[in-house]
Amino acid sequence: MKRYQALAEETAQRIRSGSLKPGDRLPSVREVRDLRGLSASTVFSAYYALESQGLVEARNRSGYYVTAHALAGTAEPGISAPQAKAMDVDVSALVFQVLTQARQRDMVPLGSAFPSPELFPFDKIARSLARAMRHMNPWQTVQDLSPGNLELRHQIALRYGLAGIDVPPSQIVVTNGAMEALNLCLDVVTQPGDVVAIETPAFYAALQALQRRRVRAVEVQTHPRTGVDLASLESVLDRHPVKACWFMPTFQNPMGCTMPDEAKAGLVGMLTQRGIPLIEDDVYGELYHGTRRPRPAKGWDTEGWVLHCSSFSKSLAPGYRVGWVSGGRFATQLGRLKLMSSLATALPSQLALQEFLGQQSFDRHLRALRDALRCQQASALRVIESHFPVGTRVTRPAGGYFLWVELPEEVDALELHRQALLQGVGVAPGHLFSCDQRYRHHLRINHGHPGDRRFEPALRLLGELAGRLVASRPTPASAQV
Amino acid sequence: MKRYQALAEETAQRIRSGSLKPGDRLPSVREVRDLRGLSASTVFSAYYALESQGLVEARNRSGYYVTAHALAGTAEPGISAPQAKAMDVDVSALVFQVLTQARQRDMVPLGSAFPSPELFPFDKIARSLARAMRHMNPWQTVQDLSPGNLELRHQIALRYGLAGIDVPPSQIVVTNGAMEALNLCLDVVTQPGDVVAIETPAFYAALQALQRRRVRAVEVQTHPRTGVDLASLESVLDRHPVKACWFMPTFQNPMGCTMPDEAKAGLVGMLTQRGIPLIEDDVYGELYHGTRRPRPAKGWDTEGWVLHCSSFSKSLAPGYRVGWVSGGRFATQLGRLKLMSSLATALPSQLALQEFLGQQSFDRHLRALRDALRCQQASALRVIESHFPVGTRVTRPAGGYFLWVELPEEVDALELHRQALLQGVGVAPGHLFSCDQRYRHHLRINHGHPGDRRFEPALRLLGELAGRLVASRPTPASAQV
Repeated sequence: MKRYQALAEETAQRIRSGSLKPGDRLPSVREVRDLRGLSASTVFSAYYALESQGLVEARNRSGYYVTAHALAGTAEPGISAPQAKAMDVDVSALVFQVLTQARQRDMVPLGSAFPSPELFPFDKIARSLARAMRHMNPWQTVQDLSPGNLELRHQIALRYGLAGIDVPPSQIVVTNGAMEALNLCLDVVTQPGDVVAIETPAFYAALQALQRRRVRAVEVQTHPRTGVDLASLESVLDRHPVKACWFMPTFQNPMGCTMPDEAKAGLVGMLTQRGIPLIEDDVYGELYHGTRRPRPAKGWDTEGWVLHCSSFSKSLAPGYRVGWVSGGRFATQLGRLKLMSSLATALPSQLALQEFLGQQSFDRHLRALRDALRCQQASALRVIESHFPVGTRVTRPAGGYFLWVELPEEVDALELHRQALLQGVGVAPGHLFSCDQRYRHHLRINHGHPGDRRFEPALRLLGELAGRLVASRPTPASAQV
Repeated sequence: MKRYQALAEETAQRIRSGSLKPGDRLPSVREVRDLRGLSASTVFSAYYALESQGLVEARNRSGYYVTAHALAGTAEPGISAPQAKAMDVDVSALVFQVLTQARQRDMVPLGSAFPSPELFPFDKIARSLARAMRHMNPWQTVQDLSPGNLELRHQIALRYGLAGIDVPPSQIVVTNGAMEALNLCLDVVTQPGDVVAIETPAFYAALQALQRRRVRAVEVQTHPRTGVDLASLESVLDRHPVKACWFMPTFQNPMGCTMPDEAKAGLVGMLTQRGIPLIEDDVYGELYHGTRRPRPAKGWDTEGWVLHCSSFSKSLAPGYRVGWVSGGRFATQLGRLKLMSSLATALPSQLALQEFLGQQSFDRHLRALRDALRCQQASALRVIESHFPVGTRVTRPAGGYFLWVELPEEVDALELHRQALLQGVGVAPGHLFSCDQRYRHHLRINHGHPGDRRFEPALRLLGELAGRLVASRPTPASAQV
């Protein structure tokens, strides 16, 4: 990261944390130059970057100020209200309908689960692939069955090491993307009929996995910025025979919330004490907007109760289907279940990534990717603040590529989804993110397509459609009169 | 296939079917030349080929005769005796032990489940892969999610078409190898606690899949040459609430048996009438020793009850992990379950095979592969006939790369496995192939490593070890006195 970027990010963090509030004046360029020993042009570049993100604005001759809408312009959604009972899960029909629509190439993909494939260095990875295949030993087709290619597992272990986490390659099982890793975890630590604790709202793929496994879900209160509420979790664990937790402690889907380090430590401590496995879905961890990767909950796992799942599908190589689980005390069982259920992860994919990761260009790519996603988040927030109806609330995640939008109660997100579809815009209605189709006036917005010029007009259109729905419907309260 | 090969194969088929018996004289070269309009050298080449396979021998001046051991030298094992009750399945520990040993590169792989990777055109496929990746559209990472790349599904449909079977691409789901396909099928057509009919002996991976799904298995009598016995199946279906059948009607693992066409037709008719899905594992179908691919049971499926699973892992591209299921009436459910459980099959692998299949060199490769496996089967049979203890019985499959050996009852195959391991030879003891570790004096022998010079000595060693076990042990009968 260049110096100006570091300064911009540091300042952005202070705005996000609230230590710099809307209307506050930033220190002058001269002040920063003298205090920090930076050149004036570095400080200017940082302030320009913050301005382009909509976080600060220049006022004539008097310097830079935090913008009114930097945080407070649109409020954050409230903390979620979990259902008290464990629920059977049945979400599939609606999810498949929405996913199918999202795959139509001509649809503006605001509802997609994926970042734009144009963000990834496919040419470079293909060169790694070609190189790796030239040196492939045919016997690797047998040797690299589950748990997977040893050199690749070693590379993955090195990345844990960079984050200060000690995971031996022997505890890593290479999988067909994180999705397979998560499903393997669920199958290893639960039986049909068991109860699993989840966030609310939760990623629909997690709900689908629970449905497939025929386990019941019990929801834990989840804050739109700080994630799983530990007091709520403790109460859930006291009341229900929870066999596992499935959480995304970092850049949760759909809200983008990240549990603070202390909360992650507390989470792992609480589960370790009770002997409850944590399935940690951490596929967005590399897509942070700040200066460093949030530490996964796995980083506090001393007893092997955390099954940490991730992949390269969102960070480097979509379509290659290379994910992994760092399985702690369950690693051997996971490797065997993988062997029984799909035998191996595609060898060309494993070798391509092993070769690419040996080259040090992963981090360069990641920096560019993070910048692109962060800037696009800023534009998305600007559009939402200026074009969505009064009363709209939105998250401001510190990473990933989703915004979680809470619209005024009168807006039925499914109706909005239908109207938007007719105009070529896909959205993910909030209905998808719980077992009982709550979150009826919520949307998940994908801002992971920075190269798509249709993005801002489509988002404006959504805001306008939502506004019309507000105007045309009685509020739920008046409807009951 | 060249003319001499066609003639050799036709004759071999007549020997296998019993219409030519040991000691029978083949028609003279002149007779065949005149009757069939072939050149004398073509007929000679055919007879030489049969001689090299040990099926015929030249006797001084009097012509070619079917050898004494061509069929009868070592008898065929008896038809299996199924257990009458449905059983819980628990086979994993032993299977993992054997599989782990088989992956050690220095072990002679007589116990392996895989053919030698040296039999496959990895360089050519890598060139197809490189070409495909140059033309890859990044958006395919989204479009080619489950059910998979349309062009590849079209190529697979074309291959069904060549076999006279009409399967539209829309019914095909591309999977992470046949193993994932089979597991998806099981998950779609059963619930935990259900009963599934299987062959006995059965492939241990099928048993593992049943164990994973927590369904119970009920065995159907299976003939070592003609496979599932329909009368036994009918009786099983009358007595048990069977929710699905999982069979390998062609080149079954481990026995190599193939159901005759009429039996396959009868099987599909019986199941269709009762509305019971057939999970058809057909991974070895392309590895026939005869003149044409045995028609899968899917070929008689008019109502969509057959879920036909296959892959390129045994025929073209091990390690690429490209399989598929042609799912009939369950195709949509299968595609969705794949989307939920592993999202997609690796795109580089899909594209490489799609590109390779477009080139027409698949069939040329297959011919060479089949020849290699057939010749190696003949040498394996010769070694078994001459070096295994009296009373040994063996199958003579018309395809694939497994022999199923029934040793004298005194031989404990697990003990033989342990002794062989110490001498660097892996085998698959019969214990692996049933829920209750029956088949205690049976072995599955892999003859799919024709380039491995250690093969014949290792097989001779096995025979000698077995002979010593016979000599050192009282027969089970005398032990009871």
